[in-house]
Amino acid sequence: MRTAVERALGVHRVLEPAGVLPQAALRLDADPAIGPDEVRIAVQRLNLDAASFRQLSEAAGNDGEAVRAAVLDIVGTRGKMQNPVTGSGGMLIGVVDAVGPDSPLGLRVGDRVATLVSLTLTPLRITDGLARWDGRAEQVPAEGTAILFARSIAAVLPDDLPDAVSLALLDVCGAPAATARVVERAAARSVVVLGAAGKSGCLSLAAARQAGAGELTGVVRNETEAAALRASGLADRVVVADATDPLAVAAAVGTPVDVTVVCVDVPGAEHGAILATAEGGTVVFFSMATSFPAAALGAEGMAADVTMLVGNGYTPGHAALALDLYRTTPGVRALIDPRVEV
Amino acid sequence: MRTAVERALGVHRVLEPAGVLPQAALRLDADPAIGPDEVRIAVQRLNLDAASFRQLSEAAGNDGEAVRAAVLDIVGTRGKMQNPVTGSGGMLIGVVDAVGPDSPLGLRVGDRVATLVSLTLTPLRITDGLARWDGRAEQVPAEGTAILFARSIAAVLPDDLPDAVSLALLDVCGAPAATARVVERAAARSVVVLGAAGKSGCLSLAAARQAGAGELTGVVRNETEAAALRASGLADRVVVADATDPLAVAAAVGTPVDVTVVCVDVPGAEHGAILATAEGGTVVFFSMATSFPAAALGAEGMAADVTMLVGNGYTPGHAALALDLYRTTPGVRALIDPRVEV
Repeated sequence: MRTAVERALGVHRVLEPAGVLPQAALRLDADPAIGPDEVRIAVQRLNLDAASFRQLSEAAGNDGEAVRAAVLDIVGTRGKMQNPVTGSGGMLIGVVDAVGPDSPLGLRVGDRVATLVSLTLTPLRITDGLARWDGRAEQVPAEGTAILFARSIAAVLPDDLPDAVSLALLDVCGAPAATARVVERAAARSVVVLGAAGKSGCLSLAAARQAGAGELTGVVRNETEAAALRASGLADRVVVADATDPLAVAAAVGTPVDVTVVCVDVPGAEHGAILATAEGGTVVFFSMATSFPAAALGAEGMAADVTMLVGNGYTPGHAALALDLYRTTPGVRALIDPRVEV
Repeated sequence: MRTAVERALGVHRVLEPAGVLPQAALRLDADPAIGPDEVRIAVQRLNLDAASFRQLSEAAGNDGEAVRAAVLDIVGTRGKMQNPVTGSGGMLIGVVDAVGPDSPLGLRVGDRVATLVSLTLTPLRITDGLARWDGRAEQVPAEGTAILFARSIAAVLPDDLPDAVSLALLDVCGAPAATARVVERAAARSVVVLGAAGKSGCLSLAAARQAGAGELTGVVRNETEAAALRASGLADRVVVADATDPLAVAAAVGTPVDVTVVCVDVPGAEHGAILATAEGGTVVFFSMATSFPAAALGAEGMAADVTMLVGNGYTPGHAALALDLYRTTPGVRALIDPRVEV
């Protein structure tokens, strides 16, 4: 007998080993028959994680046919698309085709959705042999079924935006939502964003502005990015510095700020972010390249009384906020559109 | 010309490569002549980091004489005791023997202090050839000088406690200080501590109680620890669970709590901590074994709206708080004393 929490997390779908969370499982039960709190998706497309696709391609000598066979084998064996070498998955797009009476997700049959939880924990069955995929790109046209649990997350894809734009926004929507929350709670006035010209960076600037911050500084790595960010109007001040050089960041930022948001996806940005932040301020780390010990020991070594947050990819309302910031902020569109293959 | 921030961090003492922070430097200038914002310590003892000492011993075939020569060579070459293989240092004990007129540390000549910043960034000169050390233990009797910068941290060793007790408390004093702050700011009622019978765990329980939390749960790994923690009276409830098994932690804790403090020093405690925490609650990670991606992706995968903090080893007043909790809380003494070789 599973507890409600265990059901909500999908533990009842774990076949092996028993009693672990779906992400840690070797095999899931991908049966399309849903429980009362589950949702079934008719799959249209898988987006494989870039690291996973690269590994599969290299292992198959870039033979597309072999890559396709490998993906089918993984999904058939594991009941989910989790690359056993990289451990990573990706996400999927599809249409809701069944909703259990007790599902709390608010989805309706016919909704086109993107799953915001990883494929590594999503029960998946492929029924078309991936016949429309040549095994040569991360985007995989597919037919089959996927299962969402009570605590899964899926975003309804809006009609007014191209799918590619929506997916690009949903991919990073945790950052602006968390930035907005931190700025509001701290009534922060000054904000620095490291990596401000990227997707999560420009959305975080826009979110900070909307949340009431009045002095926004964008740190970028070169003059090309600086010109683009200046033209967007999202920041009050744009400076160029190597985010991995703590003293360069501190010098470029000048007076330390209330909130620093780290959106650069390279290791070594922890100490610069700490130095950019005033005593009593907050650093939000959104880079997966963040080192926990480097952050913890760096703050201690510099006697920096700063609050450091692990950027949580989930905040209620995060998808809607990112989509709205894109719709309402010309500067966000100007920076994101060139990065999206529409 | 260095900026005030750079001086405060000791950048002026970096010889190679120029322009990095002292911790990242290959060589520091350990000249005992101090600048106006510096403090000089007459060194009495080095406590080498355990990982560093182990590496040095193994590399020297457990020949104490060779280990001593290796430490002297490192300090002589680098101007600091930073093991080039492990990257780690340790801390030191000594007596303040000179204070620059602009030093903000509040130290006086004659104070016996322990440095709370790492040896990896502390300019150090050894003058006795480590003649009183046999190279066979992490505790190194030593004579020489060390330099503190404006943003270094040192704690005056109290007269009423044995050094070994003070050092054990100072080693983990960030955890209770941060716990107290989080509990106060969130007006948290219920708190779970993972690893509650350890040094940082029991201090965190005592700090949470003092900060006003009313429902304290200690999670420990076995019945021996459970009995000791129950006898201490620090927790309202003691449960046994493997902190690396998320579902076991969730089941043992039951109703999720306002604040969860992670003090277990093993990898894999992130997901259990997240599940133990209520929506809107806070997790404070104090284990250096914490994985940033595991925390970030775990919360997202479980759609958990929790605030996750990187435990900062520095909070103003942290040393005094830990020493006071030890003095005033019999349960803390009961758990810590057996762990200290007085």
